[in-house]
Amino acid sequence: MLTLYCFGPGANSLKPLLALYEKGIPFTQRFMNPAIFEHHEPWFTKINPNGQVPALDHDGKVITESTVICEYLEDVFADTPALRPADPFVRAQMRIWTKWVDEYFCWCVSTIGWQRMVGRMAAQYSEEDFEKYVARIPIYEQQVKWRRARHGFPQDLIDEEMRKIAFSVQKLEKRLGESPWLAGPDYTLADICNFAIANGMQHGFSELVNEKDTPRILDWLARINDRPACKEMFAKSKREELPAQKPATATV
Amino acid sequence: MLTLYCFGPGANSLKPLLALYEKGIPFTQRFMNPAIFEHHEPWFTKINPNGQVPALDHDGKVITESTVICEYLEDVFADTPALRPADPFVRAQMRIWTKWVDEYFCWCVSTIGWQRMVGRMAAQYSEEDFEKYVARIPIYEQQVKWRRARHGFPQDLIDEEMRKIAFSVQKLEKRLGESPWLAGPDYTLADICNFAIANGMQHGFSELVNEKDTPRILDWLARINDRPACKEMFAKSKREELPAQKPATATV
Repeated sequence: MLTLYCFGPGANSLKPLLALYEKGIPFTQRFMNPAIFEHHEPWFTKINPNGQVPALDHDGKVITESTVICEYLEDVFADTPALRPADPFVRAQMRIWTKWVDEYFCWCVSTIGWQRMVGRMAAQYSEEDFEKYVARIPIYEQQVKWRRARHGFPQDLIDEEMRKIAFSVQKLEKRLGESPWLAGPDYTLADICNFAIANGMQHGFSELVNEKDTPRILDWLARINDRPACKEMFAKSKREELPAQKPATATV
Repeated sequence: MLTLYCFGPGANSLKPLLALYEKGIPFTQRFMNPAIFEHHEPWFTKINPNGQVPALDHDGKVITESTVICEYLEDVFADTPALRPADPFVRAQMRIWTKWVDEYFCWCVSTIGWQRMVGRMAAQYSEEDFEKYVARIPIYEQQVKWRRARHGFPQDLIDEEMRKIAFSVQKLEKRLGESPWLAGPDYTLADICNFAIANGMQHGFSELVNEKDTPRILDWLARINDRPACKEMFAKSKREELPAQKPATATV
């Protein structure tokens, strides 16, 4: 039995979600609610001690880290449609692209996303309640990030992240001028992992991702959004109504 | 034919070097000289446009990124001793550990290494010559790092990196109390990739890695250093005499 703990079809959670739909593997989606810091609750840190999603429970064994989960699905479900190239050289290109998301692209986009959205979420709590939630976060760097989201990221960090986003967008556009998909001739985990971060930038970063400056990225995003698995994922990932506000009594 | 472009048996270059010796794959070692910025010379950026080592040329195809090269060797040379677990769950643990090196452990140790050693290397050049070399570096973040190495890293960055190193050391020591090797029962790429960064810390960071505080890390380092492949690697990786000083005329 497979259960995927995730936030929904965006960012790192999207990677294994889309891979599972592409591969047609039956699984249970368990949506976590970041607005109430559900991923830091003790029941979940028993599942993933880092208090992070996505996490995949496969017959009681828990696999963490979105990109590692995607490779795990390829290793285990070898009789489903492959999202990893058979040719070792092309497979290496795929890994260079998934690695690049994890080490560069996801971080700069994430910081701006946190500045724009997570800050509001964090602001609804009193300083005391907020600090109680933050104290429960297992990873020190995540504690720092939550505090920065609440109190504001330093402007020089924001500027640097925006520079990195612009660089990332140019890098993607250039690559998509050389190859229909990021790793080579076929749609692979390289596309899924980059799509997880890039999809939505045509709205949230339209000054960078638009018809004039990045026609190839728009075309690539459209091709992925048009895939039956992607449509199915978005249709089936409508979250149950989760509280967007803190509960009357915060249960820290 | 296989040619590995690398700096020698340390840091990221050590990963594919040791993997090649462990697997017994014949290859040519081409040692690059960082003191004369050889990896940024035009002939090499034709091989790796990022101007980084290690890079593996396999029959004219170039694979970059140390961890990706290691996985590539597993994919291609399947009839040599495996450094990747057959069990998908253990393999996922291996990837979590190699990913952790690339995203966390290598960076903090690298900054301190650059502060201690690369700064001296950079200081031998006049500002004008140095800037000419730096202008040739393809990756912007590496340009920033070279300038910081020459002029001094900010103290708050040094403090933060030392905190991360201490955390990393504790994490390794804890894991080695649960398991003989990092991914599980067998020696894998998880050990090789962490060894690449950790070996030498018993000397350079002896206040953190020592018999009293980290007996398991010392034992693990000794077990790896005792392996025939590791001994062979160090014996055969004695560099030809490379100029440690700038040439009489800098050829930028």
